[in-house]
Amino acid sequence: MAIRIGIYGYGNLGRGVEAAIRQNDDMELVAVFTRRDPSTVKINTEGVKVYHCDKALELTDDIDVMILCGGSATDLPVQTPELAKYFNVVDSFDTHAKIPEHFANVDKNAKASEKTAIISVGWDPGMFSLNRLYAQAILPQGADYTFWGKGVSQGHSDAIRRIDGVANAKQYTVPVEAAVEAVRSGSQPELTTRQKHTRECFVVAKEGADLQRIENEIKTMPNYFADYDTTVYFISQEEFDRDHSEIPHGGMVIRSGITGFNGEHKHVIEYKLTLESNPEFTGSVLVAFSRAVYRMASSKNFGCKTVFDISPIDLAIKSREEIISQML
Amino acid sequence: MAIRIGIYGYGNLGRGVEAAIRQNDDMELVAVFTRRDPSTVKINTEGVKVYHCDKALELTDDIDVMILCGGSATDLPVQTPELAKYFNVVDSFDTHAKIPEHFANVDKNAKASEKTAIISVGWDPGMFSLNRLYAQAILPQGADYTFWGKGVSQGHSDAIRRIDGVANAKQYTVPVEAAVEAVRSGSQPELTTRQKHTRECFVVAKEGADLQRIENEIKTMPNYFADYDTTVYFISQEEFDRDHSEIPHGGMVIRSGITGFNGEHKHVIEYKLTLESNPEFTGSVLVAFSRAVYRMASSKNFGCKTVFDISPIDLAIKSREEIISQML
Repeated sequence: MAIRIGIYGYGNLGRGVEAAIRQNDDMELVAVFTRRDPSTVKINTEGVKVYHCDKALELTDDIDVMILCGGSATDLPVQTPELAKYFNVVDSFDTHAKIPEHFANVDKNAKASEKTAIISVGWDPGMFSLNRLYAQAILPQGADYTFWGKGVSQGHSDAIRRIDGVANAKQYTVPVEAAVEAVRSGSQPELTTRQKHTRECFVVAKEGADLQRIENEIKTMPNYFADYDTTVYFISQEEFDRDHSEIPHGGMVIRSGITGFNGEHKHVIEYKLTLESNPEFTGSVLVAFSRAVYRMASSKNFGCKTVFDISPIDLAIKSREEIISQML
Repeated sequence: MAIRIGIYGYGNLGRGVEAAIRQNDDMELVAVFTRRDPSTVKINTEGVKVYHCDKALELTDDIDVMILCGGSATDLPVQTPELAKYFNVVDSFDTHAKIPEHFANVDKNAKASEKTAIISVGWDPGMFSLNRLYAQAILPQGADYTFWGKGVSQGHSDAIRRIDGVANAKQYTVPVEAAVEAVRSGSQPELTTRQKHTRECFVVAKEGADLQRIENEIKTMPNYFADYDTTVYFISQEEFDRDHSEIPHGGMVIRSGITGFNGEHKHVIEYKLTLESNPEFTGSVLVAFSRAVYRMASSKNFGCKTVFDISPIDLAIKSREEIISQML
C-alpha cells in the first residue's frame, strides 16, 4: 500500500512536492490544502481534491504524512506544532536561530499525540547540515565553509521590491570563485563576508523612477547588501520575463581538515549542489524524508526528529538486501 | 569515561586509526595487536602496549570497540566474524561482490554474542555509498557516476610489481576531466571505462630489464589496464622515493537527475574527496563510526550494521542540543 501524502500549502514548494511524489512509486498524493478558495486552485495531479485548510482535521484517517509547504516567518511556527497534534508532519523551517524553539514546540505536541515529525528538511537546513555533521565527525581538526549560489535569494529579491520605484527584481547570490578555489586547496583561508559572495540584482524600474537612487538604496541596504560587492542591472519587464523566470540555486559545503601524528596531511570534503529549481529540489528532499517519517511512525518512534536522527536506509525505496548488495 | 579502542593489525591503516584517535577527545587507544613479534613493533602512542594477536581474548574487558585494520582479501573475512564473538568491531571490508556474504557471517556471530559490528566503513565503500543512497533517494529519476582519483591504486601498483624486471611501481588512477565536466553539466552522458579514467604508472625497472616488454605487459594486462589509456613512465629509485612516497586518493560521486511534471529541471549532486593520505582518511572514518558502534552497543542494538544504518547524530561528539542549534 502506498504512503498517503497530504500537501499543506500550495505555492512553489507545494508544487515541487507534488511533482516529486510522482517520481516515487511507493507514494500517493491524497489531498492538497490551501488558504485560498479551493475552487480557484488547480493542481497537476488528476483525481486529487483540493480542500480548504480548515478541513484538514476531517482527513486524519486518510493521510499518513502531511508535508507542510508554508513559509518559515509566520506559517510554520504555528502550523507545524498544531498539525503535529493530528498528523505525522514534515516541514522545511529554515530560520536557523529559531530552530531549537520550533523543535521544542513540535516535539511536545508530537509526543503527546504519538505522531512523528521532522523539521528543517531541505538542502540548507537539510542536506548541507548533514554534510557538515559527517565531515566534522570524520575530520575533527579543520574548518567549515559554506558557499551559496549561483542562485536566487527570495529574501533579497523581496527586499529590493520594497524599494520605492521598483516594479520587479531578482537577486542572485554568487560565490567568489577565487575564494572557493582557496578553500578547495586545503589552505583554510579566513574569509570575510565580502570575499565569499557577490550579489547581482536585476531590477525592473517603474516609469520615471530615479535609477541612481534605487541603485544607491540597494547597495547601502544594511544586512542585505552593504557588506557585499553588489552589481545592479536595470532591465525591461520583457527581459525579466525572458531571462529571470526560473528559481535556480545551489552551493557548496566544504570541510578542510588535517590528519596524521603531526597534522601533516590535508583533506578536503566537498558537497556541491547545482539546482535548476530550488523549490522542486527542496520538495524532492521533503518527499524522501516523508518515507522515513512514515517508517519511524510505523515503528512507534514518535516525537520531533531532525535530518541527523534519520538512518539513511529509511530514506530508500529499495529493500535492505538490494541496498547492501548494490550500493555499499 | 573515554571509549576504549583496540587496533587489530598495524600497517598503514592501523597507523591512520591511531593518529585519528588522538584527534577525538572522547576516545582512548588501549592496545595494538599484531601478527609480528610485538617487541619489534614501535607505535606512536606513548604508554600503550603492543600485543600479539593471540592475546586479544585476554583483553575483552578492556576494549569497547576493536577496529580491524587487516586486508579484505584474506584477513577480514576470517577476523571480523571471529572477533565479533568477543568484541564490538569495525572493519573496512571492500570486496564489493562479497559484502552480502561477509555481512551475514558477521551478523550471525555478533547477534549470538550480543555485540555490535559495522562492516565496509571508509570512503568507498563508506562515505561514497552513503552519498549514493542519499542522492538516489532525493532524485529517483537520474544516473549515478563515480570517479576515482587522482590517487594511488594499491591493487594496480601490486600488479605492476609482479611483472618480471620491475623493482618498484606506483599506479595513479586519474579521472578524465572532460568526462567529469560532461557529468556536471547534467547531460547524463553514457561513458565507457576508457572515457572515465586514465592510468599513470611510475615504474622503477631492474638493471638490464627490457623496458619495452614491461611497458607492453602493463598496457595489455587484462582487467587492470587493457581497457584504459595507460601511460608508463620509467623513473629511478631516487625519483620514486622523492616524488611517489605518499598515498593520496579521492574521487567524486555524482548524481544527475531531473524533477518537474515534465522532467524539465536538471539537478546535480556532487560529493568530492581530495585526500593527501588515503589510510589516514579511512582511519578517521573508522574512528568516527566506532563512536556510533559504541553507542549502539550501549543501547543494546546488536548485530551487524552498515553505514546506511547509522543515525548521523551517533557519529558526533557534540551533544544533541549543540548539534541542533549549531549545525542544522
